[in-house]
Amino acid sequence: MSVKFRQLHLMSRPKGMPTLENFEMRTIEVGAPGPGEVLVRNRWMSVDPYMRPRMIGMEDSYIPPFNLGEAMDGTAVGEVIESADPAFEPGDLVLSIMGWREAFVVPAGQLEKICCPSGIGEQAYLGVLGMPGLTAYSGLLQLGQPTPGETVFVSGAAGAVGSYVCQIAKIKDLKVVASVGSDEKCAWVLDHGADHAINYKAVPSLLEAVRTAAPQGIDIYFDNVGAEHLEVALATANQFARFVECGMIATYNDVGRRPGPYNIMNIVLKSIRMEGFINSTLAERTPGLKEAFLRDMPQWIFEGRIKWEETVVDGIENALDGFLQLFTGGNMGKMLVKIV
Amino acid sequence: MSVKFRQLHLMSRPKGMPTLENFEMRTIEVGAPGPGEVLVRNRWMSVDPYMRPRMIGMEDSYIPPFNLGEAMDGTAVGEVIESADPAFEPGDLVLSIMGWREAFVVPAGQLEKICCPSGIGEQAYLGVLGMPGLTAYSGLLQLGQPTPGETVFVSGAAGAVGSYVCQIAKIKDLKVVASVGSDEKCAWVLDHGADHAINYKAVPSLLEAVRTAAPQGIDIYFDNVGAEHLEVALATANQFARFVECGMIATYNDVGRRPGPYNIMNIVLKSIRMEGFINSTLAERTPGLKEAFLRDMPQWIFEGRIKWEETVVDGIENALDGFLQLFTGGNMGKMLVKIV
Repeated sequence: MSVKFRQLHLMSRPKGMPTLENFEMRTIEVGAPGPGEVLVRNRWMSVDPYMRPRMIGMEDSYIPPFNLGEAMDGTAVGEVIESADPAFEPGDLVLSIMGWREAFVVPAGQLEKICCPSGIGEQAYLGVLGMPGLTAYSGLLQLGQPTPGETVFVSGAAGAVGSYVCQIAKIKDLKVVASVGSDEKCAWVLDHGADHAINYKAVPSLLEAVRTAAPQGIDIYFDNVGAEHLEVALATANQFARFVECGMIATYNDVGRRPGPYNIMNIVLKSIRMEGFINSTLAERTPGLKEAFLRDMPQWIFEGRIKWEETVVDGIENALDGFLQLFTGGNMGKMLVKIV
Repeated sequence: MSVKFRQLHLMSRPKGMPTLENFEMRTIEVGAPGPGEVLVRNRWMSVDPYMRPRMIGMEDSYIPPFNLGEAMDGTAVGEVIESADPAFEPGDLVLSIMGWREAFVVPAGQLEKICCPSGIGEQAYLGVLGMPGLTAYSGLLQLGQPTPGETVFVSGAAGAVGSYVCQIAKIKDLKVVASVGSDEKCAWVLDHGADHAINYKAVPSLLEAVRTAAPQGIDIYFDNVGAEHLEVALATANQFARFVECGMIATYNDVGRRPGPYNIMNIVLKSIRMEGFINSTLAERTPGLKEAFLRDMPQWIFEGRIKWEETVVDGIENALDGFLQLFTGGNMGKMLVKIV
């Protein structure tokens, strides 16, 4: 059999917020999988902030940029339609990095079979049980090195990674100060791990809001946002604070050079340790980390201690819109694209 | 007996480069030491960049500011003149934090007796065998975590700390790229540990100069300078680079807010670990570190693998001038004030 499917190609490098003109939807026809290959139809794909830097290939980055003219990639959950490899059969659910496509053919070795625990949707492998979950877990615990009773400040706290960070932090007996972009998100994070929630768009001063929420200062900053949030974290940090630099979404659509934090000297004055990471390489460098995640996270979900929200857009034709909502705060929790 | 002596008081908080108006020299008369006290005449005092932040009390710093109206402090080597404590007798050489004074009386517990190895002047306890030496040693080895063959970029490399860093780095089989502020300093550091020396005041582009000197990228950045040097280090860093944030002297006399590094997102993109430290607290937090320094450094000096320069101004009346030369590049190696 052969199928026609659509996939989204990156045609030019966005300057500022990406627009439709930077992309092109193409319809491709593929034949049956050759020996050792598998034909997969995607059911869900993930859109994540880190994809924005990949659209331009940031200076000296170790995240490879998307190639111009080619379909983009990203994590996706699909169903095997036809298999020419003994390890897979039609109906199997598989995880791949072949997002931004309705269907695809790849060698079987590029697929990971998943089975869904009772009550957990398959798309959880794109969120709490997948890359964002591991990012939250490994960043907070491995780089943040939390001690019970410490205070963590989380920016982007209603996003996928941020919302898991808040709940893992609570499990680890931390005080959690969460920054989000709406009152609705404040309410959600207060119900899910946060001791204090700040709608940064509504407060007159983010610095004063964090000082009020954490008069004892912050010991860990989990950064998803950068920019002013990072300056506020530097200003409110305690001695020996750990800054987990996961992302700086506020800066991803900058045109030109945004000044960095004016108070970076606080790194010296307060003996701060600031560490960036990419989830995959951190896991590779830290023996046992991924195994611990795969043990702890399902257990916490089973115990009801980790919950999550999803924001879903339908159809690959809306995938770009879903992606762009990450930058305007349109998502509560994990932003997903339902493909079929 | 009693003596009259001079000491320098901080009278107002400098804005920009400190001037004579911020200070006042006072003459004090003290009597004989009381029971358990010791009268010391200073022979040498140290001036160091970190004293500049202490003159204003930087925002949320954990380095206590100098009190207005009081004499400043800092490390000093002196000679015991009169002792009312059995642990000291006249003629003993002692280390204290009672710099910026010609003489003083303190409880014996605030003094540390020193004895000078053959061929090493007593003032080495203010430099290579003292705080700057420990700063270089602990910063490079504990925070930098060097592996033989890696490349380290050192800013302020002809200063006290920087010049020790270059030589320790060479002992540890690192490739050393040194940034300094004159051709004379280039020549010195090339003779003392550096594989490449850059006169940052003379090159058209510091970024291009570092790229040329280290086409393989830098694995460790030992920061004494901040500002553009930090941006260049972020741009040329390799994945998993370590940034040892010792100081940012280029920014200490800023009036108003200087923008931070525009490319701070590289911390995420390259999984950089950036850690600030204050020598004393790092040593306290790291068992065995100071002991290792006290074992290694004299040994390296004895073997001729660590050398140092001194720039000396005479008399406490010139101490402030010596201090200010730290910011104009007037010193080669350790800046010292010879008091008697």
